[in-house]
Amino acid sequence: MRATLMYGAGDVRVENVPDSALELPTDALVRVSASCICGSDLWPYASMAPGGTPARMGHEFVGIVEETGSEVTSVRKGDLVIAPWLISDGTCEFCREGRYSCCVHVGMWDLLPGEGGQAEAVRVPFADGTLVKVPGGADPSLLPSLLTLSDVFGTGHHAAVAGGVTPGSTVAVIGDGAVGLLAALAAKRLGAERIVLMGRHRARTDLGREFGVTDVVAARGPDGIEQVRALTGGHGAPVVIEAVGTRDAYDQAVGVVRGGGTISRVGVPQYEDAPVGLGSLFFRNITLTGGAAPTRAYIGELLPGVLDGTLQPGKVFDAVTDLDGVPGGYRDMAARTSLKVLVTS
Amino acid sequence: MRATLMYGAGDVRVENVPDSALELPTDALVRVSASCICGSDLWPYASMAPGGTPARMGHEFVGIVEETGSEVTSVRKGDLVIAPWLISDGTCEFCREGRYSCCVHVGMWDLLPGEGGQAEAVRVPFADGTLVKVPGGADPSLLPSLLTLSDVFGTGHHAAVAGGVTPGSTVAVIGDGAVGLLAALAAKRLGAERIVLMGRHRARTDLGREFGVTDVVAARGPDGIEQVRALTGGHGAPVVIEAVGTRDAYDQAVGVVRGGGTISRVGVPQYEDAPVGLGSLFFRNITLTGGAAPTRAYIGELLPGVLDGTLQPGKVFDAVTDLDGVPGGYRDMAARTSLKVLVTS
Repeated sequence: MRATLMYGAGDVRVENVPDSALELPTDALVRVSASCICGSDLWPYASMAPGGTPARMGHEFVGIVEETGSEVTSVRKGDLVIAPWLISDGTCEFCREGRYSCCVHVGMWDLLPGEGGQAEAVRVPFADGTLVKVPGGADPSLLPSLLTLSDVFGTGHHAAVAGGVTPGSTVAVIGDGAVGLLAALAAKRLGAERIVLMGRHRARTDLGREFGVTDVVAARGPDGIEQVRALTGGHGAPVVIEAVGTRDAYDQAVGVVRGGGTISRVGVPQYEDAPVGLGSLFFRNITLTGGAAPTRAYIGELLPGVLDGTLQPGKVFDAVTDLDGVPGGYRDMAARTSLKVLVTS
Repeated sequence: MRATLMYGAGDVRVENVPDSALELPTDALVRVSASCICGSDLWPYASMAPGGTPARMGHEFVGIVEETGSEVTSVRKGDLVIAPWLISDGTCEFCREGRYSCCVHVGMWDLLPGEGGQAEAVRVPFADGTLVKVPGGADPSLLPSLLTLSDVFGTGHHAAVAGGVTPGSTVAVIGDGAVGLLAALAAKRLGAERIVLMGRHRARTDLGREFGVTDVVAARGPDGIEQVRALTGGHGAPVVIEAVGTRDAYDQAVGVVRGGGTISRVGVPQYEDAPVGLGSLFFRNITLTGGAAPTRAYIGELLPGVLDGTLQPGKVFDAVTDLDGVPGGYRDMAARTSLKVLVTS
């Protein structure tokens, strides 16, 4: 079968690899219907050292179950399933609480040797604890939106939930990438009244407005902070969603958050240390929350709106390609000429 | 009148100063009944550069109103009042939400030129927004516990509230100083079932047990982390209260917090940068919260238990002195031969 491998920064190839196959009785083999390239894939695409073992890529996909191990009970051949971006066993104390990203067997697809979503098929470990069946299947036109439940919409929703968005909330979203835009959609869905999006790509911020963004601030740094504060009563936003992952974005979040407010991070931090002391978070009682999203926990809540069309998170895909086009998709996303690339298999 | 001044590290003096007096129509003049030395006073006591303007010390006190400005309506001459550790105007949007530590006029007593609680009297600005009257006065034996509502018990309570302690919670408290011990008392009051105290001073941890601590861990570093994890189901405590303020204590908190859990900080951070990235907070969805406590907001909730004796936070005072003994009190607290020193005026 064909699958995507990253050999190093800027070097993504689609190659023939051994067919994925069941190995354990808890596995399922899933034929991929659609996968995509994640903003987080762009970090190794920018920095991965060449010369090591190439990485199998892709951690977001939907597909059809082709075969199941003898112990798998929740899905069967022919089911349309959503594969969350993280593998979870479904039985540990964290999974039982819905904290799938803290599962004691947690793992990213990227880290599984020999598997990845940007491929024709995937061996899914802990199939009962990982996959979520779409009851009754779905119209193919819904695949893009269903695919966002794997990661990007669930991650945006996690940002909004962890940030404490409730009806009437004022929210600032930093970053007009797919996660930021879907965090805006999630905040709107949870009842936010004012959603300020910090971003400078017109096509993206326009989509943000479609999702519920009320104000767009293109400026960054002190100017951006001043503009967001002016839009939010002078003191900043009680909820700030940081959907980028850079230190600059963190500092921006600290600048626009209101005293007593919350910074909810879902952009994978490209830094380890950051200011958290008296002048940044402590004196003003700023809460720092968020993290790796347990997207599986949210599928049940978000799926009905996707199936009935009231939620259309799939609009973040502005390009579609087949597997052969994946290397070009990486290039386009890195160049920001594509927002998010859908891959059909 | 007599008041306490800090001239530099290790150099605290009680001197004659101009009498405090009303200056603005919103002021009250309060004759101090009892004040105390705060753990946070020990930071400048360890590090303040000599040669500058000496600092008037003390931000926790209870006393009797002696005189009020023409616009003061909530307290009058003869009232017993609690002065929170922060001045607040009582009218800004933050104060109206109970976020007194975010007040747009917020200020610490220490920063007021010419005023401080470790003195015979204090001019209190924004008297209506700052002072809280104890209805009907109180028996003098209750003064120590009432005094803790100014800062240290309210701060411990803030740690527990911000950390999300609810009935049945498992909580780890880092630090057996007065704030840590009263955070344990606050957690117990809020229904915590398991309270693990990390501390190594036997007299203090014994008082912690009296307040509701169920387990004491004297070890620090990796050993301490391992012991707390062993006591809390193997994965750590869902709520960790950090009541010290050092980077070591922060690292300890990151080590003992359970995935998906919360670190609530009330120890004044003696660092600005700390790890918050993928490996420390982000991947495990750790929330970092807490901060400067809006203790005024909690007086109404905590006062009844203090007045009826069911809460005895004043037990943290293990030494009493008059103003002349204040320099010795600083020495004893810095040497850790006193837990917390009460000052009678």
